[in-house]
Amino acid sequence: MGQSNNIYDCIIAGAGPAGLAAALYTARDRLNTLVLEKFMPGGQINNTDRIENYPGYVNIGGPDLIMKMKEQAENFDAEIRTGAEVTKLTKLQDGNIEVSCNKDKYIAKVVILTPGSDYRKLGIPGEDEFRNAGAGVSYCGTCDAPFFKGKQVVAIGGGNTALEETLHLCKYADKVTLLHRRDEFRATKVLVEELLEYQKKNEGKLIIKYSTIPIAIEGQGKVQSVKLKNKKTEELEDYPCDGVFIFIGMVPNTGFLKGSIELTDTGFIRADCAYLRTSMPGVFVAGDCRVGAAMQLATAVGDGVCAAMAIKNYLRNPSWWNEPLSEEYQPTGW
Amino acid sequence: MGQSNNIYDCIIAGAGPAGLAAALYTARDRLNTLVLEKFMPGGQINNTDRIENYPGYVNIGGPDLIMKMKEQAENFDAEIRTGAEVTKLTKLQDGNIEVSCNKDKYIAKVVILTPGSDYRKLGIPGEDEFRNAGAGVSYCGTCDAPFFKGKQVVAIGGGNTALEETLHLCKYADKVTLLHRRDEFRATKVLVEELLEYQKKNEGKLIIKYSTIPIAIEGQGKVQSVKLKNKKTEELEDYPCDGVFIFIGMVPNTGFLKGSIELTDTGFIRADCAYLRTSMPGVFVAGDCRVGAAMQLATAVGDGVCAAMAIKNYLRNPSWWNEPLSEEYQPTGW
Repeated sequence: MGQSNNIYDCIIAGAGPAGLAAALYTARDRLNTLVLEKFMPGGQINNTDRIENYPGYVNIGGPDLIMKMKEQAENFDAEIRTGAEVTKLTKLQDGNIEVSCNKDKYIAKVVILTPGSDYRKLGIPGEDEFRNAGAGVSYCGTCDAPFFKGKQVVAIGGGNTALEETLHLCKYADKVTLLHRRDEFRATKVLVEELLEYQKKNEGKLIIKYSTIPIAIEGQGKVQSVKLKNKKTEELEDYPCDGVFIFIGMVPNTGFLKGSIELTDTGFIRADCAYLRTSMPGVFVAGDCRVGAAMQLATAVGDGVCAAMAIKNYLRNPSWWNEPLSEEYQPTGW
Repeated sequence: MGQSNNIYDCIIAGAGPAGLAAALYTARDRLNTLVLEKFMPGGQINNTDRIENYPGYVNIGGPDLIMKMKEQAENFDAEIRTGAEVTKLTKLQDGNIEVSCNKDKYIAKVVILTPGSDYRKLGIPGEDEFRNAGAGVSYCGTCDAPFFKGKQVVAIGGGNTALEETLHLCKYADKVTLLHRRDEFRATKVLVEELLEYQKKNEGKLIIKYSTIPIAIEGQGKVQSVKLKNKKTEELEDYPCDGVFIFIGMVPNTGFLKGSIELTDTGFIRADCAYLRTSMPGVFVAGDCRVGAAMQLATAVGDGVCAAMAIKNYLRNPSWWNEPLSEEYQPTGW
């Protein structure tokens, strides 16, 4: 394969599941593919001990899965460069895209952005310690609730995701305590009602503590309690639990795109949902950093493949970029 | 889990990759989930010996992969019923959906349609024999081209997919012969030009036979030749090759939906691409039968998860169904 004049057919920014899935497909398509990764392949998934919701693996460790995805893309000659942080994209007059890194500059015919998102952290003692060990701190109820069957967990947050995920936890855990720093939820009314109704119907199962923040997660080897602080009374409490779920938001890794690619107010990359085209012709997006992302491993992977399939249209005919979505994506039912 | 009054939270029509991925997620969400499957779990994937493009498996057999997906969904109490062909969907006055089968009727709060698509077949001797054995007949160049590195293959078709896939085969096979029954391709002009240009630049690598049809695929245990017929001269020819790729279209398994769900002219299910909502409130779609499907295993799986995540919005608030897509799905770049 090799590269000519440092021009790649496809540069992929981020070697998480979306980026590696895209690389597998572009490389199989014999496109000269370079994957640039700031840290190491995998991203968030490296923090996950056990994955039960990636279809095809009843149970697999995050690092294991990512190594397979990496090997698979490399089998078809995708080049993966770690320690390479993309800092800027520039659309050139000839239609190509200049990808600036901390060290080098590259030119690509198309770019697929897969920088992912990070869970927003509390930044309190114990949070990192028990997360990395898979010892009881999680940021995804949909992913990890089943591991807490019959146990006691503490959930933290007050937005839509926090309430949805808390209700999800209730399906598995024996007791769920939701902490919210304010005295009112900011989640949508329907969700707040559903939560309160659930609480009423299931006495003692769901406890809500308003105006309460966690200040430390504690335990020997695994989570055993959370130290709570009531913001009004300043009272402290050691609150026993087996797990802590932190639902205080996602931070898409898109700061480097400000000014070049259109982002939403919360920093997600705007893109059409059929072909994943962003606002810069030739630049696609896939995975957890795009608007509407379902934030699941399988959807990130599906996105990566979808973007990799779509780029053929653009490479063949750049004016395809401006084609609006077919009306077939708008059934009259809604 | 069990069911009350025969009402399921979620009925999934089709136990291929999209359906099983959806079932895994709805079942993990503790929704009472029933998967109805006409034949056996897996669909098309059962015909695939070796899959190299499902991220996470460097190489796996189709039946193996599907058994894992099935086990995984069943682990969370999804109920899979085979021999159950969905024949009709009816929206009831109370908002639920009646799902009629060849044998029974069921009621569901939401339905996810995952009936898949079949490759259109030539219907000639040898086609089934060598396909099921994985012995040289394929319907997907993107999937199987790498298995024919250095070999000689025959491709059949004249539409966009046929030309794209033929160009893809050229990246792997030593020699590709494209058969087209007419004397002109119906593919888009850009693609035809690209194909002819490729042919000119790579002498002897790509052979195009117009007005030619295959009438039999022959060989001992594996494909060794195709019997060709020139439609103008009626001349017959035994044409040696190692593989046959048939690109004459896809037939979505959506006949049973005519009159109840909006379909495209070619029978695919119309749906918005963010939430996969069809024209019937409460009925979602995922996988190869929806408009815009990329027809890949990973995208079908991603679709299934996406639909399963989206149904929560509808279950919580049915009027969500009519919400148009956010403008964030329309960056100004295109």
